Amino acid sequence: MRYLGCAYYPEYWGMNRLREDIRLMLDAGINTVRMGEFAWCRLEPEEGVYNFDWLHESIAAFGASGINVVICTPTAAPPAWLTSVYPETLAVRADGRRLTHGARRHYCFTSPEYRRHCGRMAAKLAVELAGYGNIIAWQIDNELGPNEDGALCHCEGCQARFQGWLQKRYGSLTELNRKWGTGFWSMDYSDWRQIRLTDARAWAAPSRKLDAKRFAAEMIADFAIEQASSIREYCPGIPVSTNCDGTIFGMTDYFQLFDRLDAPFLDLYFDLYTMDVSAMVKHVYRSLGSGRGFWVTETGAGALDHGRPPHPDQFKAWMWSSYAHGADAYLVFRWRTCLSGQEQDLQGILEHSGHAGHRYQAVKNSFIELRDLRAELGELPPPCAKAAIVHDYQTMWGYEASVVGNDLQYLPNMSFLHKALYKKNVLTDIVSPNADLSRYRLVILPSLMMIGADFANRLHAFVESGGVVMAQGQIGLRDLQDNYLINRGPDHLQDLLGVYLNGGMYLHSQVAPDEAIYLHPPRKRDVEIKLQGMMGSRPVNGTAAVWVGDLEFISGEVLLRFSEDTYQGQPAVVLKKTGRGAAVYAAAARLDENLLDALVEYVLSMAGIRFLAGLPIYVEVIRRGGVTFIINHRDEEIRYPIDACQSLIAGVAENGTAVLKPYGVCLLRDNPNT
Amino acid sequence: MRYLGCAYYPEYWGMNRLREDIRLMLDAGINTVRMGEFAWCRLEPEEGVYNFDWLHESIAAFGASGINVVICTPTAAPPAWLTSVYPETLAVRADGRRLTHGARRHYCFTSPEYRRHCGRMAAKLAVELAGYGNIIAWQIDNELGPNEDGALCHCEGCQARFQGWLQKRYGSLTELNRKWGTGFWSMDYSDWRQIRLTDARAWAAPSRKLDAKRFAAEMIADFAIEQASSIREYCPGIPVSTNCDGTIFGMTDYFQLFDRLDAPFLDLYFDLYTMDVSAMVKHVYRSLGSGRGFWVTETGAGALDHGRPPHPDQFKAWMWSSYAHGADAYLVFRWRTCLSGQEQDLQGILEHSGHAGHRYQAVKNSFIELRDLRAELGELPPPCAKAAIVHDYQTMWGYEASVVGNDLQYLPNMSFLHKALYKKNVLTDIVSPNADLSRYRLVILPSLMMIGADFANRLHAFVESGGVVMAQGQIGLRDLQDNYLINRGPDHLQDLLGVYLNGGMYLHSQVAPDEAIYLHPPRKRDVEIKLQGMMGSRPVNGTAAVWVGDLEFISGEVLLRFSEDTYQGQPAVVLKKTGRGAAVYAAAARLDENLLDALVEYVLSMAGIRFLAGLPIYVEVIRRGGVTFIINHRDEEIRYPIDACQSLIAGVAENGTAVLKPYGVCLLRDNPNT
Amino acid sequence: MRYLGCAYYPEYWGMNRLREDIRLMLDAGINTVRMGEFAWCRLEPEEGVYNFDWLHESIAAFGASGINVVICTPTAAPPAWLTSVYPETLAVRADGRRLTHGARRHYCFTSPEYRRHCGRMAAKLAVELAGYGNIIAWQIDNELGPNEDGALCHCEGCQARFQGWLQKRYGSLTELNRKWGTGFWSMDYSDWRQIRLTDARAWAAPSRKLDAKRFAAEMIADFAIEQASSIREYCPGIPVSTNCDGTIFGMTDYFQLFDRLDAPFLDLYFDLYTMDVSAMVKHVYRSLGSGRGFWVTETGAGALDHGRPPHPDQFKAWMWSSYAHGADAYLVFRWRTCLSGQEQDLQGILEHSGHAGHRYQAVKNSFIELRDLRAELGELPPPCAKAAIVHDYQTMWGYEASVVGNDLQYLPNMSFLHKALYKKNVLTDIVSPNADLSRYRLVILPSLMMIGADFANRLHAFVESGGVVMAQGQIGLRDLQDNYLINRGPDHLQDLLGVYLNGGMYLHSQVAPDEAIYLHPPRKRDVEIKLQGMMGSRPVNGTAAVWVGDLEFISGEVLLRFSEDTYQGQPAVVLKKTGRGAAVYAAAARLDENLLDALVEYVLSMAGIRFLAGLPIYVEVIRRGGVTFIINHRDEEIRYPIDACQSLIAGVAENGTAVLKPYGVCLLRDNPNT
Repeated sequence: MRYLGCAYYPEYWGMNRLREDIRLMLDAGINTVRMGEFAWCRLEPEEGVYNFDWLHESIAAFGASGINVVICTPTAAPPAWLTSVYPETLAVRADGRRLTHGARRHYCFTSPEYRRHCGRMAAKLAVELAGYGNIIAWQIDNELGPNEDGALCHCEGCQARFQGWLQKRYGSLTELNRKWGTGFWSMDYSDWRQIRLTDARAWAAPSRKLDAKRFAAEMIADFAIEQASSIREYCPGIPVSTNCDGTIFGMTDYFQLFDRLDAPFLDLYFDLYTMDVSAMVKHVYRSLGSGRGFWVTETGAGALDHGRPPHPDQFKAWMWSSYAHGADAYLVFRWRTCLSGQEQDLQGILEHSGHAGHRYQAVKNSFIELRDLRAELGELPPPCAKAAIVHDYQTMWGYEASVVGNDLQYLPNMSFLHKALYKKNVLTDIVSPNADLSRYRLVILPSLMMIGADFANRLHAFVESGGVVMAQGQIGLRDLQDNYLINRGPDHLQDLLGVYLNGGMYLHSQVAPDEAIYLHPPRKRDVEIKLQGMMGSRPVNGTAAVWVGDLEFISGEVLLRFSEDTYQGQPAVVLKKTGRGAAVYAAAARLDENLLDALVEYVLSMAGIRFLAGLPIYVEVIRRGGVTFIINHRDEEIRYPIDACQSLIAGVAENGTAVLKPYGVCLLRDNPNT
Repeated sequence: MRYLGCAYYPEYWGMNRLREDIRLMLDAGINTVRMGEFAWCRLEPEEGVYNFDWLHESIAAFGASGINVVICTPTAAPPAWLTSVYPETLAVRADGRRLTHGARRHYCFTSPEYRRHCGRMAAKLAVELAGYGNIIAWQIDNELGPNEDGALCHCEGCQARFQGWLQKRYGSLTELNRKWGTGFWSMDYSDWRQIRLTDARAWAAPSRKLDAKRFAAEMIADFAIEQASSIREYCPGIPVSTNCDGTIFGMTDYFQLFDRLDAPFLDLYFDLYTMDVSAMVKHVYRSLGSGRGFWVTETGAGALDHGRPPHPDQFKAWMWSSYAHGADAYLVFRWRTCLSGQEQDLQGILEHSGHAGHRYQAVKNSFIELRDLRAELGELPPPCAKAAIVHDYQTMWGYEASVVGNDLQYLPNMSFLHKALYKKNVLTDIVSPNADLSRYRLVILPSLMMIGADFANRLHAFVESGGVVMAQGQIGLRDLQDNYLINRGPDHLQDLLGVYLNGGMYLHSQVAPDEAIYLHPPRKRDVEIKLQGMMGSRPVNGTAAVWVGDLEFISGEVLLRFSEDTYQGQPAVVLKKTGRGAAVYAAAARLDENLLDALVEYVLSMAGIRFLAGLPIYVEVIRRGGVTFIINHRDEEIRYPIDACQSLIAGVAENGTAVLKPYGVCLLRDNPNT
Repeated sequence: MRYLGCAYYPEYWGMNRLREDIRLMLDAGINTVRMGEFAWCRLEPEEGVYNFDWLHESIAAFGASGINVVICTPTAAPPAWLTSVYPETLAVRADGRRLTHGARRHYCFTSPEYRRHCGRMAAKLAVELAGYGNIIAWQIDNELGPNEDGALCHCEGCQARFQGWLQKRYGSLTELNRKWGTGFWSMDYSDWRQIRLTDARAWAAPSRKLDAKRFAAEMIADFAIEQASSIREYCPGIPVSTNCDGTIFGMTDYFQLFDRLDAPFLDLYFDLYTMDVSAMVKHVYRSLGSGRGFWVTETGAGALDHGRPPHPDQFKAWMWSSYAHGADAYLVFRWRTCLSGQEQDLQGILEHSGHAGHRYQAVKNSFIELRDLRAELGELPPPCAKAAIVHDYQTMWGYEASVVGNDLQYLPNMSFLHKALYKKNVLTDIVSPNADLSRYRLVILPSLMMIGADFANRLHAFVESGGVVMAQGQIGLRDLQDNYLINRGPDHLQDLLGVYLNGGMYLHSQVAPDEAIYLHPPRKRDVEIKLQGMMGSRPVNGTAAVWVGDLEFISGEVLLRFSEDTYQGQPAVVLKKTGRGAAVYAAAARLDENLLDALVEYVLSMAGIRFLAGLPIYVEVIRRGGVTFIINHRDEEIRYPIDACQSLIAGVAENGTAVLKPYGVCLLRDNPNT
């Protein structure tokens, strides 16, 4: 990991502590700071009146001390003078009220006026700072996404731009009406102006909601790319990216966004997640980097405003985990806890008082340990996953846009799949349908309801040449407008999976508690359907939930069948071999944990992927280059047998067994010639 | 049951499948389709430009195949051009925001402009289609009621019409102020324009909220009747009605509405209810029909977007249950699952793909079985109930309008009462206070807080002539404005029940969780009060909840007394004989299940109504004409002894015992001369 | 207790019952009625047209019967004509919608127009009624506070007045920006008009939210004082106050408000609280009275719309408890239950019908008993507390304004502290930081994050001269703008407590359930940290929650240390002796109940305050003058040994032991010369 550091806000603290801060930083092994984020009102206190002195002075001082700098554009928080003079730059809520100054993310992404100011500021920064050799990267804005309402702007400008976007997408209203399927509920449109952005809670048609999501994602991405262009013009060769938070799948299509930017920047606050979900987040960013690596641009040094205070050694475990997963940078949010503002309780490395306490010590111990091992470790290649889960934003937004399907729990289902692999320490990429599949031995499709012909062809080729596909849930049943296909599914994959999918059923109840007023006793809300059969020579049974498919067997082998209700006796899990590979399909969006574990072991074995059974879930074992990282994420000592062909390079061992104290870490290097 | 069928949407699917669909329909025993609902934009794509070709072609083709047609007016979903050109037809939310195109039910019920268009469309349809012999009924709009906010329109037009409605009702502000009791909190009105429709959440006075509910109900009913008049003018003799959903008691007074329409149409989705609540819904509609029968205009063929997928034989059990309860028609919503739109997951009989799968098979099996038995069954008279529960919309809305009483759970309490009868297979009508009581032996009054003199007189006469009245909870304490009477209760019933009701107490807590912030430990929210005594010779005890009355005994017999708190030692359940009958009154809105069972058995015995004790609750036994229907609603085999004077006409018997497999049905006919 | 009575609304009921009501009142020992509240529309039915006849007649009749009168200004509910003609008097919701007529508290506190009308009405009332000798007090408005949205007005007038208020407070925007710490998230203000009142849900900066709270509190207080001035001008010498509800700490600073008014008026509905919280409320009002006593202006006679109906003797227990705590008046809300309106189910002394039933009997029994003992009891001095809890509105609002700190549960924590004292029957004042501490032996500081220099000096002096201070939680860490101090804490108290507070951690999770969507398993939301050590010679251990401090020990003695996570091994509870006294500090906002009990016993012993251990929590023992009141608040008989030097003056005793039946009361008088 090349870059260790933190965010630094001289515009907030003033310049007096700069020298002392740099001394403490150097002492703690910090070599990188991130600056400028949120500084607009201190960079341009009045329109056209700039003050870059503090920024110049800081960058120069850091440069003189060998500290790298990441510069952020300050556009996540426009200054009050800007939104006062140009109120059209403020976002409008779905209920028509305009947001006001006083927090952040309150601007309209599509406002031409706001984009003009942002472009101007980005260019100004780039021009001013182009000369500094210690600027190693640029960050656009901060955690691009919805405002405090969880929504994007609904101003009349956005409405008109949405209508224009639809016009470009569909050409004519006739075509839009046809594609959206407006013939039910008399929804045909006869004028583009009749089509408005949807409110999250409105009972709008799925097609409209899905297109509104696509529009929003494009506007966000375009907003970022506009700024990136300005910076790239004046500072060529320096990576430009934007930091996104751990909500891995939200309003923006990260695959599209980071395709147009450089190494993906990740804000990862571990204590928001269990370790398996945190690993899943890192898998996404490693996959987004596709060889370029990824940066942890924000992480916590202590307790956030959330949950349990960390154990003194927990920061180190988290840091090594990110390193093992392929991170190139590890930057703590923020050097010092702010005295004021909405984030006054988000703990920095230093206390409010500037006191270097527990968190400084934890960071320092970790950074110094990593720095001291850097020479020995060298430049490790990214870790190499043999399994991949395919994630598709179109499908995810489609579920969200559906009236019933929003209940499908696409992300929880995916994370259960991931957890089954994580428990066995199988490193897994999370990739788009466009990814090169040839790198993998196992490719998993979680409820991908929209399957394109090209993707299907590549899956066929993948299996032909020996790969294993495992598909689950609603596969290939809908078109790109979120509408069901008129042909039965799985679209383009009937041959590969050996089945027809005639339809299916959502099992999860949607009844809100207050609708149940005279339904007594309260109805069971989560429905499970039994299934049973053989997995290889092993009899298995369990339950399916959330959604089950109406399967018609064509060819291959039926592994499990449903054993109750409508589909009783029908195939539930099937196997079909093609070429040198095979495909397994489970016609359920969710399987119970034991059954899913069995299924995952079955396909891993089929794919020839080695896995570690028997380790507790809180122990991560990750290989990067020839180094194996063993990380203990619990407040209990654990032991891990060292392979004869490995040598300990960090951590403690007794009689050939690594001994990991609570939150302890152990690094093993493959012996040469083994 | 004469009409078996489904909804059909050629305007959505086009005409290509019509022949094939008719073939499949005939094969499945379908003899009726419902059409036109939601088709406005395809009937009149531009103002004044009509396209009825598809409708003519469909009706003719159905006619040629011997299939009946129900035509629906498409007014539940105005086309986009209409609401664009006439925005005043769109409803306005309580917060002042106008709804927009893109769902349904977004129109203003009182808008003169919208009513003009609806009247025009209804008349146009009636004129166009008057000639077809296979049109057997008309349906107005669809599930009349609130928009997506759960409220009606709050536009300035509605406000003014509400003010005019009040002016007509009360004559003068002086009278309104007096009747509403505006003297507390300084609420006297001095100008009609000061009185506005209430927001559901506003802390408005009960009288104002109740009148707003009455106004809304009238506007909805008038809206329906306006269309009905147009149709009746051009298509005399054909039944005209409207379909309402299973929310039996909502914003509309069904007794008033269906009094002005023909046989009531019911949309009944079984899997939304337990079977006892589903039976209660059917009781309401049978009672609404009062001899005209009722139609199930919508029902599900499979899983909705809710709950558990049905067992393959469950559709048949549901169908027979509706038949036994007196339904004349049984129409599935819808022939084929739509590909698009908000209801794309509401499963039709066919799959999205048109595939005739599980649901087609279940429907076909059921319809064919019924068709094959039709000759044998003949035209059965409606089933005949000896018990009735009196439901009063004024009381129900009164509770809803009350600040405290909205907690009374009028409907749950009524459904507990009904359940006690249902468990014993006692068929029960649910009727308005205006119903003819002489048909019954037992009449139940559940918390009817407004008792009119005429109703009281008829109750007296009913008891005099041998009937049994069972009253429960808050009886005769309020006037028609939801205000307490200045005289103590039970209004007009003091003599019949033998008590004074000096007042009472709500026991159910209203404290919202977030108000409880410094109340530790959390307060018990549901309060129960003990009571005990004798029921006949049987000692009983139990608990009362929700509301208890402050009873002063006048004459008769005290059965139970309260045994704790304020009312300890006071009468709780009393018996008073009058003429050849008797009245039992329980001064509690809810009794625990065991006590209520005992009380219901006690009054059933007194009324001489036969009941079946000992059957599980999931077995329905209903007599219609000389036929007894036994229906098993659970996934377990059950046995039912056949009476010597009955013969099996459908189902399986062994040694004089009917054997009902899971979801099995058995029909027994009374032997002649028995 | 001098004044026993109820609220009376002749404007609602008319004058016909006046004689009969007075007869019943006198019979029940009532000597005081409260009138005029909410009567505006009946006092001034049209602008400038007055009708005071009913009020004159009532006051005169009461006077003739020896009944005192409290007159209320009717400003809590403006008449419809007023808000119609002057719509700017209506409050505006945070979302911009203006409230409408039809409930109460819907006016704008700052509206010059509304204040003009209120001043006019108050003056008119004072002038009209100045001559009556039986008017003993005036009440301003009713339960001053937020409207139905739980917020104050957000109209443009309020916005401008808030901006003006800030201008006066900070002088310049530069100073405001500095004090508010606007440098993070680019929040610098460049125009006063950019600063708006915050919506409760808006993610505004803590400083802005805190100042908005201060502004609101001032506007409310000013509103009350304006009316008080009018009344004092025309009716000098009569106490003027306002009644506040039991939400002891809400939007108004009661210390400031009642400093400008006379004896504090309390609306206390017991069944909203457990008895310990109810005692806490009375402590607050007794402390607000600081020698002037306090009045219970509203209390319930039966069930409210909440919870459990009372036991027949419960009213008496509640009354004696208020008397023992120092109340001078005890007025029931209201004479008779209203027939109509939002409060139609709030039970008065009489039933709706005017019937004198259970509640009349309970009130009469209690009032007569008290009246009969009055001569014997004489004028008892207020009860005298040796312990005090310091409450600070600035701190409370500061927590509420914080993004994370709003989770701190300041009030629950305080009530847990109070409960530990209450369980031991230690009477406790609840006072502002400005209170004279010399009266106490023990002063408790609950999470007071803002510590002023003057207050700190007085605490030092208090300890020097032998007092004991017990401090808990976040002490002296923030400035008056809710921002953290740049110096470590505890501000001004480092020497007294013997520690540095380097910072701390919130433990309570803020994650809303729906944010947790793909976090499985659900994260533990309440975190507890272990601590252990010695309290005197007693080994103790337990858990801390909500917030823990990062303590650095300077001098004194460490009693307990944290034993896990970040702060493991660090001091958690410390003791420091100074002069003749001592200070104990626990670095946790909440301790588990056992540990807190141990700590409170430890400091009570150190302070030499006698306490009663071993009594159940539902038994109150309070000394007022030489009389000891023992009150049983449960439905079980209890026994209490009578001290040899006391004599029974009310209640039942057997062999020197008082026997208290359910809800029984016993009064003991100290024998002379003991």
